[in-house]
Amino acid sequence: MPGNKKKVSNKFGLPPGTLIHIGEKKVEKPKITVIDYNESVFQEKEVESVEECLPYKDKPTTTWINIDGLHQVETIEKIGNYFNLHPLLLEDILNTNQRPKMEEYENYLFIVFKMLYLSEQGEGIIYEQISLILSENCVISFQEREGDVFNIIRERLRAGKGRTRKMGADYLTYSLIDATVDAYFTVLEKIGERIEETEDAVVRNPTMEIVHKIHNLKRELIYLRKSIWPLRDVINLLERSETPLVKESTELYFRDVYDHTFRAVDTLETYRDMVAGMLEIYISSVSNKMNEIMKVLTIIATIFIPLTFIAGVYGMNFKFMPEIQWHWGYFASLFLMAVVGITMIFYFKKKKWL
Amino acid sequence: MPGNKKKVSNKFGLPPGTLIHIGEKKVEKPKITVIDYNESVFQEKEVESVEECLPYKDKPTTTWINIDGLHQVETIEKIGNYFNLHPLLLEDILNTNQRPKMEEYENYLFIVFKMLYLSEQGEGIIYEQISLILSENCVISFQEREGDVFNIIRERLRAGKGRTRKMGADYLTYSLIDATVDAYFTVLEKIGERIEETEDAVVRNPTMEIVHKIHNLKRELIYLRKSIWPLRDVINLLERSETPLVKESTELYFRDVYDHTFRAVDTLETYRDMVAGMLEIYISSVSNKMNEIMKVLTIIATIFIPLTFIAGVYGMNFKFMPEIQWHWGYFASLFLMAVVGITMIFYFKKKKWL
Amino acid sequence: MPGNKKKVSNKFGLPPGTLIHIGEKKVEKPKITVIDYNESVFQEKEVESVEECLPYKDKPTTTWINIDGLHQVETIEKIGNYFNLHPLLLEDILNTNQRPKMEEYENYLFIVFKMLYLSEQGEGIIYEQISLILSENCVISFQEREGDVFNIIRERLRAGKGRTRKMGADYLTYSLIDATVDAYFTVLEKIGERIEETEDAVVRNPTMEIVHKIHNLKRELIYLRKSIWPLRDVINLLERSETPLVKESTELYFRDVYDHTFRAVDTLETYRDMVAGMLEIYISSVSNKMNEIMKVLTIIATIFIPLTFIAGVYGMNFKFMPEIQWHWGYFASLFLMAVVGITMIFYFKKKKWL
Amino acid sequence: MPGNKKKVSNKFGLPPGTLIHIGEKKVEKPKITVIDYNESVFQEKEVESVEECLPYKDKPTTTWINIDGLHQVETIEKIGNYFNLHPLLLEDILNTNQRPKMEEYENYLFIVFKMLYLSEQGEGIIYEQISLILSENCVISFQEREGDVFNIIRERLRAGKGRTRKMGADYLTYSLIDATVDAYFTVLEKIGERIEETEDAVVRNPTMEIVHKIHNLKRELIYLRKSIWPLRDVINLLERSETPLVKESTELYFRDVYDHTFRAVDTLETYRDMVAGMLEIYISSVSNKMNEIMKVLTIIATIFIPLTFIAGVYGMNFKFMPEIQWHWGYFASLFLMAVVGITMIFYFKKKKWL
Amino acid sequence: MPGNKKKVSNKFGLPPGTLIHIGEKKVEKPKITVIDYNESVFQEKEVESVEECLPYKDKPTTTWINIDGLHQVETIEKIGNYFNLHPLLLEDILNTNQRPKMEEYENYLFIVFKMLYLSEQGEGIIYEQISLILSENCVISFQEREGDVFNIIRERLRAGKGRTRKMGADYLTYSLIDATVDAYFTVLEKIGERIEETEDAVVRNPTMEIVHKIHNLKRELIYLRKSIWPLRDVINLLERSETPLVKESTELYFRDVYDHTFRAVDTLETYRDMVAGMLEIYISSVSNKMNEIMKVLTIIATIFIPLTFIAGVYGMNFKFMPEIQWHWGYFASLFLMAVVGITMIFYFKKKKWL
Repeated sequence: MPGNKKKVSNKFGLPPGTLIHIGEKKVEKPKITVIDYNESVFQEKEVESVEECLPYKDKPTTTWINIDGLHQVETIEKIGNYFNLHPLLLEDILNTNQRPKMEEYENYLFIVFKMLYLSEQGEGIIYEQISLILSENCVISFQEREGDVFNIIRERLRAGKGRTRKMGADYLTYSLIDATVDAYFTVLEKIGERIEETEDAVVRNPTMEIVHKIHNLKRELIYLRKSIWPLRDVINLLERSETPLVKESTELYFRDVYDHTFRAVDTLETYRDMVAGMLEIYISSVSNKMNEIMKVLTIIATIFIPLTFIAGVYGMNFKFMPEIQWHWGYFASLFLMAVVGITMIFYFKKKKWL
Repeated sequence: MPGNKKKVSNKFGLPPGTLIHIGEKKVEKPKITVIDYNESVFQEKEVESVEECLPYKDKPTTTWINIDGLHQVETIEKIGNYFNLHPLLLEDILNTNQRPKMEEYENYLFIVFKMLYLSEQGEGIIYEQISLILSENCVISFQEREGDVFNIIRERLRAGKGRTRKMGADYLTYSLIDATVDAYFTVLEKIGERIEETEDAVVRNPTMEIVHKIHNLKRELIYLRKSIWPLRDVINLLERSETPLVKESTELYFRDVYDHTFRAVDTLETYRDMVAGMLEIYISSVSNKMNEIMKVLTIIATIFIPLTFIAGVYGMNFKFMPEIQWHWGYFASLFLMAVVGITMIFYFKKKKWL
Repeated sequence: MPGNKKKVSNKFGLPPGTLIHIGEKKVEKPKITVIDYNESVFQEKEVESVEECLPYKDKPTTTWINIDGLHQVETIEKIGNYFNLHPLLLEDILNTNQRPKMEEYENYLFIVFKMLYLSEQGEGIIYEQISLILSENCVISFQEREGDVFNIIRERLRAGKGRTRKMGADYLTYSLIDATVDAYFTVLEKIGERIEETEDAVVRNPTMEIVHKIHNLKRELIYLRKSIWPLRDVINLLERSETPLVKESTELYFRDVYDHTFRAVDTLETYRDMVAGMLEIYISSVSNKMNEIMKVLTIIATIFIPLTFIAGVYGMNFKFMPEIQWHWGYFASLFLMAVVGITMIFYFKKKKWL
Repeated sequence: MPGNKKKVSNKFGLPPGTLIHIGEKKVEKPKITVIDYNESVFQEKEVESVEECLPYKDKPTTTWINIDGLHQVETIEKIGNYFNLHPLLLEDILNTNQRPKMEEYENYLFIVFKMLYLSEQGEGIIYEQISLILSENCVISFQEREGDVFNIIRERLRAGKGRTRKMGADYLTYSLIDATVDAYFTVLEKIGERIEETEDAVVRNPTMEIVHKIHNLKRELIYLRKSIWPLRDVINLLERSETPLVKESTELYFRDVYDHTFRAVDTLETYRDMVAGMLEIYISSVSNKMNEIMKVLTIIATIFIPLTFIAGVYGMNFKFMPEIQWHWGYFASLFLMAVVGITMIFYFKKKKWL
Repeated sequence: MPGNKKKVSNKFGLPPGTLIHIGEKKVEKPKITVIDYNESVFQEKEVESVEECLPYKDKPTTTWINIDGLHQVETIEKIGNYFNLHPLLLEDILNTNQRPKMEEYENYLFIVFKMLYLSEQGEGIIYEQISLILSENCVISFQEREGDVFNIIRERLRAGKGRTRKMGADYLTYSLIDATVDAYFTVLEKIGERIEETEDAVVRNPTMEIVHKIHNLKRELIYLRKSIWPLRDVINLLERSETPLVKESTELYFRDVYDHTFRAVDTLETYRDMVAGMLEIYISSVSNKMNEIMKVLTIIATIFIPLTFIAGVYGMNFKFMPEIQWHWGYFASLFLMAVVGITMIFYFKKKKWL
């Protein structure tokens, strides 16, 4: 389960603002890429050290600095120094257990959210924490590992078509969030498929394994909810905030991505209701099976127990048992048994147990 | 289940505002009809291309342009261009997974909601997304397929009686929403009937099939809620918005349709409570049956097991068994069995198990 | 179940404001009664046609026009014309599926709520929709059938004692609502008694019939809630509204009836909690009984099965069975059986199963 | 159950403001006591008639008039007349089914709440309705019976120590409410003890009696909640109201008692959660016991049924049965039985059923 | 369970502001330590009496007075007198059943919250009530016992590095709260581990002990929630309050610790959902086991009961039984039994019971 394994307690006792990476080390060496563009210019390069990013800082063009990998604390610290970021903010970037949130600082906005995508085997869901810093001409993004969800944005910037190149850092921020939210739907669809599969299986073959699948789906949905739900408020805050960093023309786009997040949350809730109902079906299904088995046992037992008793009676060794001597005694006893058995069957038929 | 099959993920990675149809292709060729009217004039025609609609745009009469079928993206795009609609809005029209919503743009309002009606066989519920654009003299409506719910409005316009012809585009918008909400009640009544049928069946004959019916009802109600609930807020927004596009005289009508939606939601909630209780009855009913079966088994078994034991004892082959030799031994043993059996029956009667 | 049978769908497709009666025809012919009074004057008569009410319209005295029976649409329509009522309002009066609500129009207030009372057999609850129109000197009330809850108000007016005759139309409105809310408590007490009866029965004798009673109580409470809950908001609105139609001196009385409604809602919630717990007791009670039965079966079976086995062994016909030949073999085997049986009983005693 | 037995319906049909006592008659004769005090003066006496209270009305000292017993309507009516109280207020005092509430009138505040204390046997909880009227120099309190919770306040006043004597009527009101809320905790602690007892019993010995105890605890908590929860809002209203009757210096004290009420509510909620979980444990515990019993039955039955079958086979009377003639046949059959039995036991061990 | 054992009722009847310690006596003698510092100066000493603290009161340096142990009421009283604290506040400090809360007084803020940490054996959770008084240059903290969570702050102050020494009393308050909230995560992680252990055990080996563990986890979570949840509001109030005691520069830090508390609450909610699901799995798991056992019983019984019956028939002692005389009768009967047995097994296979 994501986030559970990361020990926050390692940090216990350190003064606030102490930078320590909480999370798994997911890449070997942090990779820093800079993309600098405006409508006519486009430059993309991978830099070795943070210092190389500095020249872009004061350029009028829009600059996107992306850092993959958070475990090298010094890199993050340097960026903090060069770009004048608050130490508490840096601490938040490094702690990958954040709730999605948005914070306004004097010259920049700080946005944290979760990127979700399916693992390459297509089974598990990968949770990655993304931190964005939006300042006037610059977006700095921090990822836990080399991402693929943002690649589309890179492609779009390289291609130079569409609106992205023409608009500023706020639109870039929007694009990154939009790409992330779009990726949520891919994850949700996968979950949707798994729910349908499980739903079929519950009815066909209710085993303990199904209970586990249902339980895992529930957990998965709890985690998804925790990741997606607060993003709605973050985007709403972005749309409504009066910061000059988000231009009015971009607000419409944030409204749109807000809508998408709402839809994702809606879908999640629907899934939740559906999964909640599944355990009830499981229990009904199992208790139904039990019932059927019990019925068979009851019928077999109640038919044969009296018959066996009759046989037992005529198996007694008493010296004087008149029926024993009768010529047709044996057949009479068989006939008696048949009568008892058939009566019982009719009784069960009447009771609708057969 | 509606909406589940439409892959949003096909859109993944495309820049915002890219028009792509998400949903099933439900008609062969989009059909565009124009109705132009005021109190004295009425004109209705089916046009071949979007261009033919343009002359109506600047007329002082009220124009209703209706497009059936969304899969021909170019048609939608052309309308967007001619009527100056925002690309994000066009994207929303084409994506049939929208939550009902209302958005104010500078010169027009954009309203999305779900039209629900029973399929012709009268069993399934058909969900269709309706997008409305309300500008000053013009309403543009987008449907997924040729609708029948709006036909009544057309009839009313043709007949020229009543208020509809006298009032403007906002009243037409109201009429379309009102017709849709009225249709919700037809769907709800059908669901209500199915709930009552199922409720009877739960008691009469609790089978796994009933559990499925209950589960399907639950799902259906989840989807209905998702479609109807947000419409309430949409209409409330319309009623309270300060847009000049909705005249004050029409607000009263929106208040009325708001009330209807509220009632629909209310009915839904009642249905939900009723369906929630049904599974409990099912379980009680099954466990009751189980109980009854168990009782029969217990009684038969507990009566005959000791009797069979007695018979077994006198079936032993020991050389020296005094009772065996007695003349009345057999009858004495039968009498003993009868006593044991009757005692047991009395015991059960006392315990109220019989 | 109330309200369920009234087909709203009959109205489908009709233009808004079309008057059609939705509900059952409960009286033969609508009955119109006029009561006209002030502190010194009192006049009461039954009129044949709506026209006869008109003279009272502009009198300074307070006039109460009461219409019993809604199915004669023309009557309602005429009243609408004479008193200048909005068509949507008339539509609401005729549709007996309304949620309790209050609407302010320019010269009058429109109030809808549910009157509840026990049927004459004292078993069922009768739901009746009451619509009130409060204009300056006049209250028009619409009932589905001849009412008995309002008779007390009539008596009080005739008697001429107390505050009612001295105060105006707003106080009359208050009196009518107050009488209705007082009647709720009679209904609630009946329900309370039924809950206590059922609670006793659940413990004494848990049968499927009890499950049905519980289910019916739940449904009844759902409907009661739907009728009573929104009235609270209606009265609150009346109390706080700034309409000149409700004088400040009367507001205190509305606050009081608001309190009563609150208490009714409170009682309903308590009932709900109590009924919710009852099914759990039922299930515990049934499973407890099952348990007891199972215990008896187990004990009888586990004691006698080994004994029967021993008897079976000595009933085998082998040529060479030494025990068979022993003189005390039979008694030894009986003793062995007794030892086994008693050991088992002690084991069960130790396990606290006996 | 408190409040359930008091028939509100007796009042049905009476005009508002009619005084009728709803509740049980709990004392023989209403007892009126007057305490008049300021920092230096203290006078306490029991008066025979309401008239004797009047002289205290206009004195500058603080006067506390306490009435024990509500069934003598004339007494209440007289007080209403002398102190100029609204008839609806008097009606509320007499109806002991009130929800805790606070109402502002022109010259006084009206506060209703529930006093709770344990009965002398220490088992049941006694609910008593307290009405307070706070006017400038005077507090009038109405109790259903002679109280003991307020005695502490009387003692404190007599002793003349502490703040109470120095401060005015608003502080007295606070003291009365504070004493009442303190008494809630005594009741809550008793309930807490009962919950712990029941919790232990659920595990040790799950019987139907426990289910009843749990159910009664639930009901008790529902009633407690109904009594305590609204008091929080009442006190909050008192603290925040801008009435000159509550001095600013006293507001701090109301904030404190508000806190206490909040804590009482908090404790109640915790109890609720704990009781809610108890039924689940009960059911688990019962089903566990059932399971254990079933296991024993299964094991005994499945071991002996095949053995008995073998014995049955060799008990058949066929003329030609070779094994019967064998010398070691009997021992071979016993050996066979032992093998079958031991195999079964091993199978069950492997399955972890033993 | 924390807080449950402390009898609030001991206090019943005492006037408000009476100081009495409600809670367990956890240290022998209260220990008072004073830390006085600014950026350049640092002094730390343990004082014997409250009087020794007084000189620090008016110094411009920041003073932190820490009292460990609450049962010596006079100490608390003296501090109240010297520092001019409201008696109700002192009462709150001594009553260790407080809900976390913040109260503004004229010259100081009063903050109460719960410190949580694991007991030394690492199993139980220790709840301790912390009361903070923040005045201009001074923080007074009250603990129930000698704390270890605050030691880190002491170390940091001694070391003199970082921000703490440079900033004032409000930052110290923040540091203390932050250290407490950080300690919550250690506790939450322990709970998280226990949840995972229990979750594994539920599946592997569902016993009643597990039900207890689940129940205890639930209770623990209820208490944790009660302690942590209100702290969120407290910190939010601190951040937003307009008191001059909290400088604007410190508000950012409070926002950060608010975030942490939010995350703790979030984690708690996730745990709650997870624990809620566990009992369902337990029940499924037990009912599954039951089912399996029932299946074995049914199969063994239903196979052998008819066979035993056949054996019983040929064990009857009738004189004339033709089959008995047949040479192959015995083998024929064995063959018949085999046929019946195998048919049954096939039937069960078909039914998927084997």
